[in-house]
Amino acid sequence: MDNQGESEHIVKSYEQELGRLKALLTQMGGMVEAQAANASRALVEHNSTAASYAVQDDLAVDRLEREITDFAIRMLALRQPMAADLRLIVSSMKIASDLERIGDYAANVAKRSLVLNEMAIPFSLSGVANMCRLVQENLKNTVDAVGEGNADRALEVWRSDIMIDDVYSAIFREQITYMMEDPRNITPCTHLLFMAKNLERMGDHATNIAETVYYAITGDIMPSDRPKGESSFTVNRHNGA
Amino acid sequence: MDNQGESEHIVKSYEQELGRLKALLTQMGGMVEAQAANASRALVEHNSTAASYAVQDDLAVDRLEREITDFAIRMLALRQPMAADLRLIVSSMKIASDLERIGDYAANVAKRSLVLNEMAIPFSLSGVANMCRLVQENLKNTVDAVGEGNADRALEVWRSDIMIDDVYSAIFREQITYMMEDPRNITPCTHLLFMAKNLERMGDHATNIAETVYYAITGDIMPSDRPKGESSFTVNRHNGA
Repeated sequence: MDNQGESEHIVKSYEQELGRLKALLTQMGGMVEAQAANASRALVEHNSTAASYAVQDDLAVDRLEREITDFAIRMLALRQPMAADLRLIVSSMKIASDLERIGDYAANVAKRSLVLNEMAIPFSLSGVANMCRLVQENLKNTVDAVGEGNADRALEVWRSDIMIDDVYSAIFREQITYMMEDPRNITPCTHLLFMAKNLERMGDHATNIAETVYYAITGDIMPSDRPKGESSFTVNRHNGA
Repeated sequence: MDNQGESEHIVKSYEQELGRLKALLTQMGGMVEAQAANASRALVEHNSTAASYAVQDDLAVDRLEREITDFAIRMLALRQPMAADLRLIVSSMKIASDLERIGDYAANVAKRSLVLNEMAIPFSLSGVANMCRLVQENLKNTVDAVGEGNADRALEVWRSDIMIDDVYSAIFREQITYMMEDPRNITPCTHLLFMAKNLERMGDHATNIAETVYYAITGDIMPSDRPKGESSFTVNRHNGA
């Protein structure tokens, strides 16, 4: 920790620092939302410019995660926060880490889209497009819940993740069928399966963030009676894989 | 935070608390190692008892992650740690979170093994078996690096992850070939692809832990000139998907 930075922060009020932490999270959330939107454009509209944006932005998102973590650790060291503030600061690191993962998955979807664009795809992408839309919607609500510190909205995200799981299962079955029909579909379908899996995981990480927001605000863990999505081949989504 | 627990911890010396945090991490590391070993047995030896152990242990691993996080937050609140101690405590939460993910992936591999055992697999699993072995080796070194606080060993893990990536790429190509050869292979091969991906991610999270250990001990970020593994279809492993 350099002394210049340290004294600079001590001058600032504690509330200003908490505000800055929230602003950094909101900024990161916005960037990751843009990454997800570009990944979706790359996949659904075969837009390679959007794909390259999603990939490029990954570096800036990584930097922002590090900035948030460093800032949070500095606050822990200098401010000795208690109770709700402590929860908020620790939660910020967790949220930044989940956002970074979502950005990673978006970049991966974008990269695979570039590969997919080179292949003949004789079937509709409407299922995956639908999944992209649901994930983006959930991500937007998540980022809003973070910005507003809104526990109800966090609960909403958490509950709606089930739809993403169901769409994923349907896509899984669909892609297997296409592969069975024609071996030439195997390579593109495999990519699409991984892309759908990545989208599902973006949804899972949004759910994680929702849980973290809920905990940061209420100090409680979310009720665990969330209805579960249909699972593909007995593999449960809570198993993260 | 309940007052009873609080006063109990204040009585204990700070060093004892740090020791307890390390012991919890080592315990969690051991459990996740066991999960990975059982997942490997489930897959390679078609052992469904091992599979059910890997799945069952997931709950205990999750509980341990929460215990570590709660304990770390409590230490942050009550002890106002600085410099190396602060890094260690914050890192513990990060390590616990990565271990928990590794456990998730291991449980998922185990679950898919159960599904796979019901199918005819007319090809060798030696590639995946090799990958299981490498991942377990890396995980063991990682857990040791955590226990010993050994930055050199952490660097070793970080460097050897490249082998796992290469084996993954080979398996990917192999499975695509089997699918092309016979449509009846498509379903088992798809499971194996996801399992191999899960194993690769277990390796990635072990690498994350190695980076965290290195940072906790040295206060520095690892040198970024790590050689990269061969990538499958232009998709880079650092993109986490």
